[in-house]
This record gives sequence, structure tokens and C-alpha cells, in this order.
Amino acid sequence: MARREDDEVRHLTDIPSLSDADLGEILARAEAIRRGEAPSPFPGSIASIFYEPSTRTEMSFLKAMDLIGAHPLRMLPERSSVTKGESPEETVKTLAAVGARAVVIRTSEPLLPERLKAIGPGIVNAGDGCHEHPTQALLDAATLIEVKGTLEGLRVLIVGDHLHSRVSRSSGRLFVRMGARVRLAGPAELTPPALAEALGAGLAEDLEGELAETDVVMALRIQKERQAIPLVPDLGEYRRVWGITKERFARHPDLLLMHPGPANLGVEVDGEIVDDERSLIRSQVRMGSFIRAAVLGMVGEASI
Amino acid sequence: MARREDDEVRHLTDIPSLSDADLGEILARAEAIRRGEAPSPFPGSIASIFYEPSTRTEMSFLKAMDLIGAHPLRMLPERSSVTKGESPEETVKTLAAVGARAVVIRTSEPLLPERLKAIGPGIVNAGDGCHEHPTQALLDAATLIEVKGTLEGLRVLIVGDHLHSRVSRSSGRLFVRMGARVRLAGPAELTPPALAEALGAGLAEDLEGELAETDVVMALRIQKERQAIPLVPDLGEYRRVWGITKERFARHPDLLLMHPGPANLGVEVDGEIVDDERSLIRSQVRMGSFIRAAVLGMVGEASI
Amino acid sequence: MARREDDEVRHLTDIPSLSDADLGEILARAEAIRRGEAPSPFPGSIASIFYEPSTRTEMSFLKAMDLIGAHPLRMLPERSSVTKGESPEETVKTLAAVGARAVVIRTSEPLLPERLKAIGPGIVNAGDGCHEHPTQALLDAATLIEVKGTLEGLRVLIVGDHLHSRVSRSSGRLFVRMGARVRLAGPAELTPPALAEALGAGLAEDLEGELAETDVVMALRIQKERQAIPLVPDLGEYRRVWGITKERFARHPDLLLMHPGPANLGVEVDGEIVDDERSLIRSQVRMGSFIRAAVLGMVGEASI
Repeated sequence: MARREDDEVRHLTDIPSLSDADLGEILARAEAIRRGEAPSPFPGSIASIFYEPSTRTEMSFLKAMDLIGAHPLRMLPERSSVTKGESPEETVKTLAAVGARAVVIRTSEPLLPERLKAIGPGIVNAGDGCHEHPTQALLDAATLIEVKGTLEGLRVLIVGDHLHSRVSRSSGRLFVRMGARVRLAGPAELTPPALAEALGAGLAEDLEGELAETDVVMALRIQKERQAIPLVPDLGEYRRVWGITKERFARHPDLLLMHPGPANLGVEVDGEIVDDERSLIRSQVRMGSFIRAAVLGMVGEASI
Repeated sequence: MARREDDEVRHLTDIPSLSDADLGEILARAEAIRRGEAPSPFPGSIASIFYEPSTRTEMSFLKAMDLIGAHPLRMLPERSSVTKGESPEETVKTLAAVGARAVVIRTSEPLLPERLKAIGPGIVNAGDGCHEHPTQALLDAATLIEVKGTLEGLRVLIVGDHLHSRVSRSSGRLFVRMGARVRLAGPAELTPPALAEALGAGLAEDLEGELAETDVVMALRIQKERQAIPLVPDLGEYRRVWGITKERFARHPDLLLMHPGPANLGVEVDGEIVDDERSLIRSQVRMGSFIRAAVLGMVGEASI
Repeated sequence: MARREDDEVRHLTDIPSLSDADLGEILARAEAIRRGEAPSPFPGSIASIFYEPSTRTEMSFLKAMDLIGAHPLRMLPERSSVTKGESPEETVKTLAAVGARAVVIRTSEPLLPERLKAIGPGIVNAGDGCHEHPTQALLDAATLIEVKGTLEGLRVLIVGDHLHSRVSRSSGRLFVRMGARVRLAGPAELTPPALAEALGAGLAEDLEGELAETDVVMALRIQKERQAIPLVPDLGEYRRVWGITKERFARHPDLLLMHPGPANLGVEVDGEIVDDERSLIRSQVRMGSFIRAAVLGMVGEASI
């Protein structure tokens, strides 16, 4: 996680390894692509490996490749040599030899993308277990900038299972760095004070009182698939205590809503407010393609 | 299923909601694409979601996207958030936010495409359970027009399991509307008189006598995968009574053969006649790409 | 497997059916593509069907399609009518009707590609059971030519399970034809003398002595997935006797290493030497895209 020495974005595996200049350039490029300014075409192939299922992130990266004119090498792990026991290292070396200039990877294994950086092609982390999901953080920040102009002084509350959430880690850290006041709320066993401290975030006392002093609430997905022990046994109870319900949302008329998706509707967020005019959930997805196009373009250029 | 009020094809979910003008334009555009006249390029992405397996329909839609220059966002449900319980509504909203201007969907759930029309992107039904398969009907009609010039007065017999067939519903209905005399034949329990009536079709008495007064016979696939109860217990017996066997086909030298595919060779149709010069089965598949390119182009334009 | 009568490469199903002129043209075209000379764009679609899992071969063919500007129709058997029992013959006829000018196929069934040649589109064998893997042989030969200038007089040793290996059959045969002296080494029950004779290859006595008189050693994958009986019960013992270990490799400082991939690291080859400067393993993968682009371009042109 050491900072790069050159001034190019060779890889994107986590938020801390992005310099402020990188960050500014990604946001500026994404904004230009959003406005319809065609980026210079990417001369080559970008591989994607999603070891874990995904809709929005995988589709968004495919759209991003189209936006920059890159050729997609979409590996489907369950149809590949992974079934013959091939390691991610060998797979990435093979994809590089086939012609991939960059590799987008989603995995359940924390820090795997970091480990793959030494191989050669640009590595873009599309979520590594409970560790990081840096393009999610960037699209979240870009969405807030689009609506609010800045994150400086913005009061953000992230609610849910922080222990298992790479989104909380990546977005929380980036929001703090960009000047927001971030607080974490959630069941005590899923909201470690040490994590809050590591992110530079505070801990919220209770949800209701906190929402009154919050500009943007981000509900996290209850990650049933990443919980070894069922830490949230009663989803109805979870909704009652920690859910962004339609009633709660209505009580705070200036509150904006975010969610990284896919949402458990009726658990951490009510289905009725997902498409509310104060919900940024679709804007987050929309921004994702532009952010990823910007990142892939920069990583690709650095790989030449 | 009400008619649209404007004069654009915003969606294609069933045959009744197409106006005569729409129908004429789809056929004319498909014919132009078939002749090699490049349509104006489609500026954007089209998503496809095949919740049920498919070869010809999925490949045909992918080819159609290429013909109009659209970018494919091919969602693979078993690799996606569908595995985390995401609803089709949420998935389509996500795909729209990613940038899909239209969504092609195949599902086992009747009327799901209809329900998805309210979301935003153009919805193209690629088969919804036992309900409809409108692009199949259009390609069937276009195939017959290519060979016979018109459907007016054409005598068409559809043989098989009408109860579970979306093809019988869509193609039968369209053939009647375009002036053909359509009759249904098949086991009594799979050929409800009420369905024939709804389509404007007649019921055939016996297969052999009927074939003598038929220009085109369409054999339907015995849909083992869509039958809760095994209504066709003996496939050998089915072939003997209802199969388009090579002997039967030889006895009627002017008869043309159709099948929506994939065929159970040796059951509803004999393998020996699938590539006969009087078989239109490959022509149907070939026409599929042109029809779908026309439909996607129109739906895409209407989405701008 | 008879030689073609015309002088075009209509199909590529095995090495013997390639004329010397074909061979020369494939290598020349691949070299031109490698140097960055854009081939004339392929006007149409190429389908791929991988009934067996693959990373490098499938990705390499997708990259090859991109290199020649062909449109990919990537069939995913487990999501297709194959699940409804559709035969490969029917599938290829359907893909041809959809618009595929060529079909790339990988299958566990020996000689299936040969059987499919009669249908119409160009058939490219991407590995058929224990039979052949002709593009692997071509890329292996091209890799050796790149490094050594010629195969004439080159001493090649292929080590492993020849009985189940299509690579041994295809590459061994091609190397011999191009002037190399090829020997096979491996467990007696997996190295039939009749096979060596059929390839025009010799049999090696012992590994260690043979390596001293070898320019290039190719380790074969222990094909656990293609062995009905576990003929290699002890992988540690296999490595000791037949593995290209780092110690063995170090003892022969001029020896070059090849492997068709994916390798069982620590079994037939040690992980430490896969990326050695005397290893051609990544070069083989790299060459694969150029060879396949050349083959697909020629097969596509012949299909017009």
C-alpha cells in the first residue's frame, strides 16, 4: 500500500495509494466523459475476472470499456482453468500474455489485487473481500460532488455492517480525506471502534438522533454471503433498529440517501424510497461507468 | 396490453400491442438489413438478460446488436446479483443506470416484460414463459413472406403442445392477423379450444387429413422443461400420432415445414427432413437476426 | 483427414490436413500480425463453443477475433439449448444460420470437429479430447521459430502423459514434419511406442540422460480430468521421476522450457522456473493470439 513513486496511475487497488493529484484527475476525466467528451481510445484489451458474482460492477466496467473503446476479455472463472486449480497469479500472467493491458478483478480474498500488481498489467480492484472497493468510493464521491458541489463539511452517516464491508472502508476513508465528517452507525458487534478510528470517522450514538444532524445517509448491504456467523439473526429487528425506513426518511426532509447496491429491500432500506427524488442510488450506478472509464483509461495509458 | 398512443415502438412485449404500421415498418427494416443496407448505427448499449437458457434467440439478438452497431451488455444471471436475490425490476433499473437504452429479456414468468415497461429502457420480450415470443412470430411471418410473398390466404397448421407454447400464441395470432388461415392440431389436453378461439384459429380434426389441405406445417417443441405434469408420457407414441415424420412429409410434396427450435429430432419432427429443401427451419433462424436488428433499432430510436 | 483439394484453408481440424503451403501462410500471416500489420478486417461473425473449460485458449481466440475485426458470437453451452439436449450438429447449423462464418470448438469428443466440417461454416478445432489441438501446435512451432529461427535439426523432448494428450499428438507431429528430432518421455503406461511411431518420434530412455541431448523440453499437463483411471497415483513421485524441477532445469543451462498450460506447478514443472528467462511458456501464450488471428482470417476468407 506504499505510494507510487512515479506520477501515473499504474494500478488502482485501494484509496490510500491514490495521490491527491490522481484523485483530481480521475474525477476530472470522469466528468469529461459524463459530458460526452470522448476520451482518447484505449488501444488494446482489458480483462475482467469476477470470482464473485456481480451485476452493477461487472456491467459498469463493461460499459466503461466501451466508453474508452477498449476490447473486453471477459473471463468467466467457472468456465476456465480456475476449475483446474489455476492460481490468480498464473491467470493474470496468462491474460497479460494474451494481450490484456489491464485486469479488473473481484475476489473474496482481501489484498489479492495488491499481490497481483507485481506481475505487469495494470490491476484494478473491483472489490477484494472485506478490504477495499476503490471505484465504488470514487463513484460515491463523484455523485456527492455532482449534487452538493463538494464533500467539504458534508455530514455523512454510514449505517450497517462495517465489519464485513469493503464499501464502508473505501468510501468512508475517501469521504474523510475529501473533507466530510463521517460517522458510522450499526450493531455494536459490526461497528468496531478501531475501524472507525482507522477511517478517521466517528461513531454515532443512536440512529434517530444522528439522522437529524446528517446530510447524507449511506445504508450498507447486509452481506449475508460474507458472514461466517449469522451476526444479524433477525432481519425484521434489524430494519426496526437500523433500517432506513420510509418513515425515518420522511422525518428528515433534507436527508439524501445512498446505497452501494444490491439492496435488501425492506431490510437495510425500504423499497419505497429507493427511487425517491432524494435518493442518489441510481445516480451512483450511473456515475460508476464514467468513473471506471476514467480509471481504466488512466491505468491503460500508464501500461504503455 | 393496451395500444400505445404515440407512433413509436417503445417496447416489444407482445404482438397485440404492435400497430399495423409498426408491423409494416419492422418487416421493411428487416428486409433492408437483409439486403445489406446498413441501418443507422445505434448509439449506445443494449442489455440482455436470459434467465432461461437459449442458443438461437440469444445468439440472434447478439448478432442483431452487431448489425446495428449497438454495444452489448450481456448479463449472465447465474453470475450476477440475481444470486443475491435481486429482483428483475431492480436489475433493469440498474442496467438502465449503467447505460442500457433497451433490455432484451427471456424469463419463465409470463408478463414480466410487460411489468418492466414502466421503468424506462425499451423492453424487448425474448420469450416470457407460456405467454408470448413476439420476435419469433415476426421472424416466422417474415420467413413466410420471403417464400410465399404474402400470408394472405395461406393455410398454416401448428402441431403440438399449444397449452405450454408461447410460440403458438405469438405466431398463431400474428399469422391470423396477416390473413392466414391457421389451425391447431395436437393432443386434446394440450390443445384447448378456448386458446384456438382466442387466437382466431380453428381446430384440426386429424393430422393426416389436415396436412392435405395445408401449405405450411409448424411443429412445436415438446417443452419438457415447461410441463409440470408429464402430459406426453410416451414420445414414440407422440411421434406416431403427431410427429412430422419423413413419411408424412413425403406424402405431401407441396408442404413446407417450420419449427421454432430447438427440435426434439425423432419426436415432433424427424431429423431427416430438418434440412429438406422444403424446410424453412434454417431460414427462420437466419431471418431472426434481421428481424431483431430491426426491432432493436426501432426500440432504441424511441428511447432517445 | 484427407488433404483438401483446393488451396484454401476451409477448416483447421488437425495438422495432417494442412499443406506445407497452408502452414507457411499461417506462420507468415501470424508474423505479420505480430509485427502490427493489420490484417484485412474480417467481415462477419465467428462463433465459439467451449464445451470444456479453458482460459488461455478461449481468451486467445477472443483476442484473435478482435485482432482481425471479427464479431464474436460466444456461445456458453451451459446457458444454451445444449441443456435441452441439442446436438453439436444442430448447434453449428443454428450458429451458421445466425451468421457465423466460422465456428471455434473445444470438446471432449475426439473427431467431433472433423464431423462438423460438412455443415458449412469453417470449423476450427480448439482441442477435441485426446485427438488434436492444431492451433497449439502452430503456436508452439511459431514460438520455436521466433527463438531458434528454425525447427530443422532441433532436439525436442516431450515429457508426460502422451496417452491422453492432444498436445503431444499435434505438436509432436508438427515438430517432426518441420524437421525437428522429437522424443517422448514419460511413464511407460502413458507413453505407447505405437503413438511415438505414428508421430515419427523416438522414445527416450531416461529423463536425465536425455535432457543432456535436448534443446527444448516440453512438459505436458497431468490431465487429471481426462484420466478414467488414476494412472498417476502419486504426484510427488511423478515430480521426482518426470518433473522438470528447478534442480534439473539448472543442470542444463542451454535447455529451453515449454508447457501448453495450465501447469500443475510443483508436479510436471516447478513454479520457480515458469518465468525463467529460458522458459518460453509466456511466449507460447503470446504467440497464440497471432496464430489464431491468422487461422481465423484464412478460414473466414475461404468461407466467403
